[in-house]
Amino acid sequence: MEEQNKVAKKAFQNKASQATKKDAQAPKAPQPKTRVVGEGKNQVKITFLGGVGEIGKNMTVFETANEMIVVDAGLAFPGDEFPGVDVIVPDISYLVANKRKLKAIILTHGHEDHIGALPYVLNELHVPIYGTRLTLALVENKLKEHPKIKAKMVTVKPRNVLKLGDFAVEFIKVSHSIAGSLALCISTPAGNIIHTGDFKIDFQPIDGEMTDLIRFGELGKRGVNLLLCESTNVCRKGYSMSESNVGRVLEELFKKYPEKRLFVATFASNIHRLQQILNLAEKYKRKVAFTGRSMINVTEVALKIGEIEFDKNNIIDIDRIDKYEDKELLIVTTGSQGESMAALTRMASNDFNKVKIGENDCIIISASPIPGNEKSVYNVINNLFKLGADVIYDELADVHVSGHACQEEIKTIHALTKPKFFIPIHGEYRHLKQHKELAMSMGMNARDIVLADLGSQIVMSPNSIRQTGFVKAGIRLVDGMGVGDVESSVLKERKQLSEDGFAIAVINVGGDTGEVIGDPFVITRGVVYNDEADAFVSDLKTNLSVFMKTPDVKGTEPSLLKNEVRKFMSSFIFKRTKRRPMTLAIVLVD
Amino acid sequence: MEEQNKVAKKAFQNKASQATKKDAQAPKAPQPKTRVVGEGKNQVKITFLGGVGEIGKNMTVFETANEMIVVDAGLAFPGDEFPGVDVIVPDISYLVANKRKLKAIILTHGHEDHIGALPYVLNELHVPIYGTRLTLALVENKLKEHPKIKAKMVTVKPRNVLKLGDFAVEFIKVSHSIAGSLALCISTPAGNIIHTGDFKIDFQPIDGEMTDLIRFGELGKRGVNLLLCESTNVCRKGYSMSESNVGRVLEELFKKYPEKRLFVATFASNIHRLQQILNLAEKYKRKVAFTGRSMINVTEVALKIGEIEFDKNNIIDIDRIDKYEDKELLIVTTGSQGESMAALTRMASNDFNKVKIGENDCIIISASPIPGNEKSVYNVINNLFKLGADVIYDELADVHVSGHACQEEIKTIHALTKPKFFIPIHGEYRHLKQHKELAMSMGMNARDIVLADLGSQIVMSPNSIRQTGFVKAGIRLVDGMGVGDVESSVLKERKQLSEDGFAIAVINVGGDTGEVIGDPFVITRGVVYNDEADAFVSDLKTNLSVFMKTPDVKGTEPSLLKNEVRKFMSSFIFKRTKRRPMTLAIVLVD
Repeated sequence: MEEQNKVAKKAFQNKASQATKKDAQAPKAPQPKTRVVGEGKNQVKITFLGGVGEIGKNMTVFETANEMIVVDAGLAFPGDEFPGVDVIVPDISYLVANKRKLKAIILTHGHEDHIGALPYVLNELHVPIYGTRLTLALVENKLKEHPKIKAKMVTVKPRNVLKLGDFAVEFIKVSHSIAGSLALCISTPAGNIIHTGDFKIDFQPIDGEMTDLIRFGELGKRGVNLLLCESTNVCRKGYSMSESNVGRVLEELFKKYPEKRLFVATFASNIHRLQQILNLAEKYKRKVAFTGRSMINVTEVALKIGEIEFDKNNIIDIDRIDKYEDKELLIVTTGSQGESMAALTRMASNDFNKVKIGENDCIIISASPIPGNEKSVYNVINNLFKLGADVIYDELADVHVSGHACQEEIKTIHALTKPKFFIPIHGEYRHLKQHKELAMSMGMNARDIVLADLGSQIVMSPNSIRQTGFVKAGIRLVDGMGVGDVESSVLKERKQLSEDGFAIAVINVGGDTGEVIGDPFVITRGVVYNDEADAFVSDLKTNLSVFMKTPDVKGTEPSLLKNEVRKFMSSFIFKRTKRRPMTLAIVLVD
Repeated sequence: MEEQNKVAKKAFQNKASQATKKDAQAPKAPQPKTRVVGEGKNQVKITFLGGVGEIGKNMTVFETANEMIVVDAGLAFPGDEFPGVDVIVPDISYLVANKRKLKAIILTHGHEDHIGALPYVLNELHVPIYGTRLTLALVENKLKEHPKIKAKMVTVKPRNVLKLGDFAVEFIKVSHSIAGSLALCISTPAGNIIHTGDFKIDFQPIDGEMTDLIRFGELGKRGVNLLLCESTNVCRKGYSMSESNVGRVLEELFKKYPEKRLFVATFASNIHRLQQILNLAEKYKRKVAFTGRSMINVTEVALKIGEIEFDKNNIIDIDRIDKYEDKELLIVTTGSQGESMAALTRMASNDFNKVKIGENDCIIISASPIPGNEKSVYNVINNLFKLGADVIYDELADVHVSGHACQEEIKTIHALTKPKFFIPIHGEYRHLKQHKELAMSMGMNARDIVLADLGSQIVMSPNSIRQTGFVKAGIRLVDGMGVGDVESSVLKERKQLSEDGFAIAVINVGGDTGEVIGDPFVITRGVVYNDEADAFVSDLKTNLSVFMKTPDVKGTEPSLLKNEVRKFMSSFIFKRTKRRPMTLAIVLVD
């Protein structure tokens, strides 16, 4: 991430220094030509603390001379490059340094990559949170695990306008894979800014309320100075399918398997998906049992605030499924991503005592594997098949749709809002680049589009936009009870340990004589396989003993001895195994 | 893998014991109904040592009372569950136990998942290897790194028939993403067996020689007792596109970017792709520079044996590209999978001194990310974009086609060969299951199809087939210079170390008094982040010292003391960090 940031900064500097060598044939110059920026009061600064140059941990800052508002406070899930790390959150040094200006955190919706960093942010900053009812209910649920944090939360609705000093924020209804999703129109001294949040255009939405295209059009007519539009699916042609399409496919499966026990695995937060599933259960006279903690939590929260509707009499406890025939049951479960502790994963490994999978089961996985989860998901599917179940997943039927706009939907928003300036957001650099090309194919000028990166600071006035530089931004690693820096040696240590293990020698040296006392003690873990291990350690010990008695080593100072021993061990181990474990020597002076 | 194997065996046993409860409504019972098997000489045993229930490390054994032949000896690449492991190879205990019967290893083609285990196999077994010219050239290249291994290699050609005792093996030309690919027709005392290897049906193949559909049809007419057909793309509808289609798309790009320096990244082994690229270079008057060790090796090998044709005068050394204008250059490189040390990856990180990427570069990634490599590939793409280059990859244009048959191609082979029995191969369980459904949709009976798993042994006679049990099979981990078992504690140790690091205390105890001498020495790695580390270790040391002086601990025997110290450290560390590092205590008796 930091590495990327450096590359980006470098690219930015290269561009800046080459600004004079303008090439008529190169319409895709990554940075806009610098325009003159007035130093007046009608400026707004936009700073990206996350969500550009990456998918996840979304956080954007809007700022005038007096006020600052933040949109979203999301987390990202760590990949293999962060062993042992629980979650990744944005570095909020910039917010902390400007906390007196900070007026609000506005949440576009309740997904983890938009709200997940709140516990960490609220631990350092006192600031009110704005969002829709469901979004805030999910935040509340999350904050239960952090009882020390007291947050002021204010519920907002589409078409509400929130006045925050220099800013006025209007909320615009959008469809997405979670209910209660919003786009924002932020009116600023520099003009109107539209931030789409995450969205799609669903012409047959489950709650009957479409992405508010009319409002986007009205705002476009009035004048949008800057559009920030999400880019997740910008490489996908055409339109995303309607959520209601999934309902139709699921109904076909309910009809196809009238005698089987049915399972649906999906994201707990996809309330509209759940609503459709619950409606089908009612229609086809099946009792519903929820399993998985988040499924139980979220459905309770959503029912309480009226975001989902179902007859509580149709819900049974998972412990009572034995009282019903297979054909009378629908089990709604977590685990659609193959998460190791989730209910479905445990069922698939025959390790979930409340449900045993067999030949009369049909499991529908109503989700796509999030990139990086493919292996775990397919592992669950393979195991379910082996237990004799039918498994329906996205490769075999249209049991899932994406919540993100594809190319034609994105174009619709560009066409309606007709922005003067544009910054693509929510995407890796390749998505942002592709989104820039899309905007240019619709007539925008390269110099009116800014490709931002982590930490980018962009200054906009009514008639200009330019990237002025970078603020401190990056990633913080939440890990057990600690929060660490990505530069920390801890990650490097864990990586080395994970690949090659470690070897440690303990050596006693007489304090007066400087002579080595007794044999060295050697221990290794994660280095050699079981059947070779004893012989290997004993050889290492013997050789080390001999080495310690060589004339050169014998008189060495304890502080230097440590290094000599390490070097000897490393080289011995590499010769024998071609591995480079972490090697440590502990020299104890008696 | 072992875990899966266990699940599979269990499922198999369940099925066996439930064989009487036959359900008329369940056509998908995972195992065929047992037929009476004659004990006569007209039997053949088929044993799977790899390639079923998994993608990779393909290895199938065919056996009569007197002879045994093996098809393919492939490796698999380890995922995150095998930290530090270089490659995975099949457990060949079964071959070693039967080595006197073993007559040949027959290679269908030269991909690593078909030839990569040869060094390991040939280390334990002396057996001649059969394959096409290119396949054997690649094997030879591989064996250069293992100079002790002397292998007898015999070149074969399509339509050749090889007599091996009870077996006669006919080689059938197929298209695949590497030249010189073969399917096999193995005639046995139990009837003809067709093994497809990996294949696709390409109606416009680059070498002009199509998958030999006519021969498949002739053999089908003569009578095929058993079909073993690959399943990699069995979940994909329709047909795979022709390799020549990629050539057309690439040519469009040559035309679109006449002034830019062009790069193509692809698999070195995809000789036909390279041939097209080299033809285009010649046509558009660009000099070709190869970079990446495997690219240079493979093109040399292929040129030598005539599998690829190009004018050596058009090839320049990568060190000489400065002598040419951008528009006169085509750089063909490795790194299409984002491999960390590959040329393209290093170019993207600005870490490859022979080529610096800039705005006049267009990089074509003529490959798809292999599942698991997505993150690395997109990282390379993002970095190339950031350096100002144009990047064309599979999401943006059809610059790659798969080498594996999709559903309609697979159906073509079933239709031509009309087998009596069928075993789907080369796929995870979900692929094999889907392939079974495909065969049944074409009229096959469930009881004539066997779903095999790792170690499955299947006995076929002219009129029957049944799975009789499992032999020892599984995976061996090649790691540095060692070969280990998957059950080894080494992997568990590395996993624990990778997530939470380790903490070690060294304690001196007086041999005569049993009293602890001095302060404990404590060292941790990979546990706490830098800024907390010193305070943490010092606290742990202080608390441990206090603990050592508590009356209960004071007199404890050294051997028991070790455990007490470990327990104390674990609990102290968990309370402070919510982490569970590997904890060791070393008690030295003075």
